Amino acid sequence: MFRDNLQKIVESCDGAMAGVVMGFDGIAVESVSLDPEVDVNTISMEFSFVLTQVRKAAEILETGELEEVAIRSAKLTFLIRVLSGDYFLGLALRPAGNFGKGRFLMRMAADELRAQL
Amino acid sequence: MFRDNLQKIVESCDGAMAGVVMGFDGIAVESVSLDPEVDVNTISMEFSFVLTQVRKAAEILETGELEEVAIRSAKLTFLIRVLSGDYFLGLALRPAGNFGKGRFLMRMAADELRAQL
Repeated sequence: MFRDNLQKIVESCDGAMAGVVMGFDGIAVESVSLDPEVDVNTISMEFSFVLTQVRKAAEILETGELEEVAIRSAKLTFLIRVLSGDYFLGLALRPAGNFGKGRFLMRMAADELRAQL
Repeated sequence: MFRDNLQKIVESCDGAMAGVVMGFDGIAVESVSLDPEVDVNTISMEFSFVLTQVRKAAEILETGELEEVAIRSAKLTFLIRVLSGDYFLGLALRPAGNFGKGRFLMRMAADELRAQL
């Protein structure tokens, strides 16, 4: 079921290469990749550690629940949407990919994904 | 000079509360706040540590230079634009603030800010 949601997001967003549902512990529940060279599990695992640090910072600052993180580097944009206290949705895009559409699709899919956790 | 750039960004972006130019070491060069309750130095300092972790992850993953990070939590959106290997520009927005305009204004100001570093 996660797979269908991920496939839909990745295929509907220009420039999206891969999507993942992952635990904050860095273990993927499901992933989909349109580009065999993009190892979305490794990317997400690396950023899952960072995400835990961001959550801690948000807690210290009392800015409320962490909802979204976007990381843009020269060769990759990585969008994260927090699904629960344990899981997040990640989307890897090419730099010229549709950042706004990616965020929108992830927000739209979040409730359905959450219901499956 | 940083002050004028920061003031312009914060005043031109709906929902922006404060802006800062800060070192990755968490020490602010200059900051501007429209809301006395928003301590942008503390927010940025807390996220500067995270930013260092994001850079390390990007290095490990070989995704090229880190350019932008956006962190959205229930009560605060924090946008970051990397200016150099040592400094970044940060913008704190209300959750309903104009995320896209904030990113745009930061991108437009980056070269001018960089020239002053």
